[in-house]
Amino acid sequence: MLAEIITIGDEILIGQIVDTNSAFISKALNKIGVSVYQITSIQDDKAHILKALKEAEQNANIIIITGGLGPTKDDITKTTIANYFNDTLVVDKAALDNITHLWQNVIKKPLQQVNIDQALMPSKSETLINTVGSASGIWINNNNKTFVALPGVPYEMKALITNAVIPKLEKTYQLPYIEHQTIITYGVGESVIAEQISEFENNLPHFIKLAYLPSLGSVRLRLSAKDTDKNKVVTTMQQQINLLKPLLKNIDHHFDNEPNRIMQIGALLKANNLKLAVAESCTGGEISKQITANPGVSAFYNGGITTYATQSKIDVLGISTDIIKTYGVVSTKVAEAMANGVKKLYNSAYAIATTGVAGPSKGDSNTDVGTVIISIATPNYTISKQFNFGKNRFRVIQKATYKAFELLEKEILKNC
Amino acid sequence: MLAEIITIGDEILIGQIVDTNSAFISKALNKIGVSVYQITSIQDDKAHILKALKEAEQNANIIIITGGLGPTKDDITKTTIANYFNDTLVVDKAALDNITHLWQNVIKKPLQQVNIDQALMPSKSETLINTVGSASGIWINNNNKTFVALPGVPYEMKALITNAVIPKLEKTYQLPYIEHQTIITYGVGESVIAEQISEFENNLPHFIKLAYLPSLGSVRLRLSAKDTDKNKVVTTMQQQINLLKPLLKNIDHHFDNEPNRIMQIGALLKANNLKLAVAESCTGGEISKQITANPGVSAFYNGGITTYATQSKIDVLGISTDIIKTYGVVSTKVAEAMANGVKKLYNSAYAIATTGVAGPSKGDSNTDVGTVIISIATPNYTISKQFNFGKNRFRVIQKATYKAFELLEKEILKNC
Repeated sequence: MLAEIITIGDEILIGQIVDTNSAFISKALNKIGVSVYQITSIQDDKAHILKALKEAEQNANIIIITGGLGPTKDDITKTTIANYFNDTLVVDKAALDNITHLWQNVIKKPLQQVNIDQALMPSKSETLINTVGSASGIWINNNNKTFVALPGVPYEMKALITNAVIPKLEKTYQLPYIEHQTIITYGVGESVIAEQISEFENNLPHFIKLAYLPSLGSVRLRLSAKDTDKNKVVTTMQQQINLLKPLLKNIDHHFDNEPNRIMQIGALLKANNLKLAVAESCTGGEISKQITANPGVSAFYNGGITTYATQSKIDVLGISTDIIKTYGVVSTKVAEAMANGVKKLYNSAYAIATTGVAGPSKGDSNTDVGTVIISIATPNYTISKQFNFGKNRFRVIQKATYKAFELLEKEILKNC
Repeated sequence: MLAEIITIGDEILIGQIVDTNSAFISKALNKIGVSVYQITSIQDDKAHILKALKEAEQNANIIIITGGLGPTKDDITKTTIANYFNDTLVVDKAALDNITHLWQNVIKKPLQQVNIDQALMPSKSETLINTVGSASGIWINNNNKTFVALPGVPYEMKALITNAVIPKLEKTYQLPYIEHQTIITYGVGESVIAEQISEFENNLPHFIKLAYLPSLGSVRLRLSAKDTDKNKVVTTMQQQINLLKPLLKNIDHHFDNEPNRIMQIGALLKANNLKLAVAESCTGGEISKQITANPGVSAFYNGGITTYATQSKIDVLGISTDIIKTYGVVSTKVAEAMANGVKKLYNSAYAIATTGVAGPSKGDSNTDVGTVIISIATPNYTISKQFNFGKNRFRVIQKATYKAFELLEKEILKNC
């Protein structure tokens, strides 16, 4: 079963926003066995929408459109869809009730005509009530194809996909089973991995595909399988994973569906009733932010300090002015003093500290842009390592953050 | 002049990654007067790539393809392009030199045949040397149309767009002038704004388009103008902005091309030689991270503390156990003690503190999920406000962060 996603909005085509909607929809469709054939981003333009609908109908069985359902003049999706199906717009009572309820109880402002007009729906459509906004979704079955139109606001689109579209598609179609398994590898280029697993790749069953996705210092290997026989997919995938694992044994890697590195570290700390604290300079809060992005981390994470200015390292972490003067603010001595300072302050067993120059200018230091020193304080000793992560501020921060988690995990594994 | 962007890669169609490349390319093209007609994301599949190239050639003059130029088996873009133009692949000396240099001096590993094969290019193409990776770009002029193929790794694609593609397009085509102006408004729905500026919208010149882009508690209004006469675009746009500004005077707003709120706050603090510190609980480092995402903030930002666990608020910020016991950890008293604690610790004039429950569970508190108290400590007094930002962890953190900057700016403006 194939789907096509059409995202409507000039804001995507001028690069003002990144289209995150289609990734969310693709993932949700894949989970129920629907493959996405194509994602097409088009202009807020009647002729262009009509052309895209026609092409999509030739490629796919399920066509999902987002955007252009709002109350303003640039929102033309609804009239264009009505036009595509030679249909007219009529007031949908459930949609109107939803809007009235929203304005009376949540927005608490007078309802205007443009809002009431949002209850106009194509007469041939089924309305998918948007419980978190005023733009309800549209569902049309026509010639054994399904057309769905959803609002472009991600929060509203997500609620409708999860609560309305996915359950209805599962009821409407008999769907195959799709499984993806992703292995994230670190520190080796894709050509080296390809060489190492070439025989495995050549012998993959025809219904399993292998893809390489390189990124910063990391390559994802994705195995994708699809078949009507769920049992066959699950069993064969597991067999292939069992063949692949030993081939990667000299490469640092983990599986995507395993808990992420932070939660793996957290599980180790939690099991031993140990706590973690973080002192950040050049990473500016990114390490702390990535930790707290996971719910439940208060079980092992005491908290973090960003001592961005040199004076804060003295004021907050009690680092002596002498150390900073003698060794410089970007130095192993300062990184270790930061790690030990924050460990003590937060009464923790482990601490991470970073000091460096994220760029583009050198800040309080004479060190080269990209230099980062990471220090890990453990219950019994402190280690540090110096890196140069290049000249791009964003990359320096990201790479330093990833490296810090890697170093911390290594030390914890030594001691737990 | 119209362009179409084709991004190749199953990882996009299964929702494993969000396609950020096309937003970057669209923005760069718009700046030089090229409009993007469509963005199409397609499978790593020969027939699909050929079909997309053919359709794109009918829609646009400039076709930019990303992805599938790597050394592994799933990378089929190059052979498919050669096929599309009835061409063969030949070794490109400059590309080979680049790869050899990279392996000898940067990667420092033995060069393998798959890497050498990356120097094979369509004979009719001009090679765009990739100085930061092994997959060089392809430039083909054919029937007054330009085809460009670039690697999918964002870092490599960006370098090629900026240093090779944009300058070459400017040399090849006579391009019109495009200007976008975006006004970001806060706290009012799009229908209210549309009502308020309806006459302005009706009277816009035909070459200026207005779009509404709603998101969390904010609506962006974008004016887009395009004409061969740059002077006409700039002058008319300024006139329209001058007409629009007074119509929005009762709505909190700022222009996108103005410095962002953090840098506006920073400029005020810097001018008065005042410093800022941050103590975060439920926002977990997000406020600090958003501040330090801007270069040069060490001029006014002393740093921040994340006291995630209740005990850390006691250990690090010196908040008394009594206050926490009496008022609860999510309370105005605790928020204010955090703000004053961090202000003192960092020897700053201003401080932000947050305490709340980001969810999904209630953590160390009995307060409702979504409750956040934000406190701002100023040189002479401390204020706090309580909010409920709903049940979605990500939204709670984002909304609290935005609100904290808004409250801080208000207090600084009162005092500076």
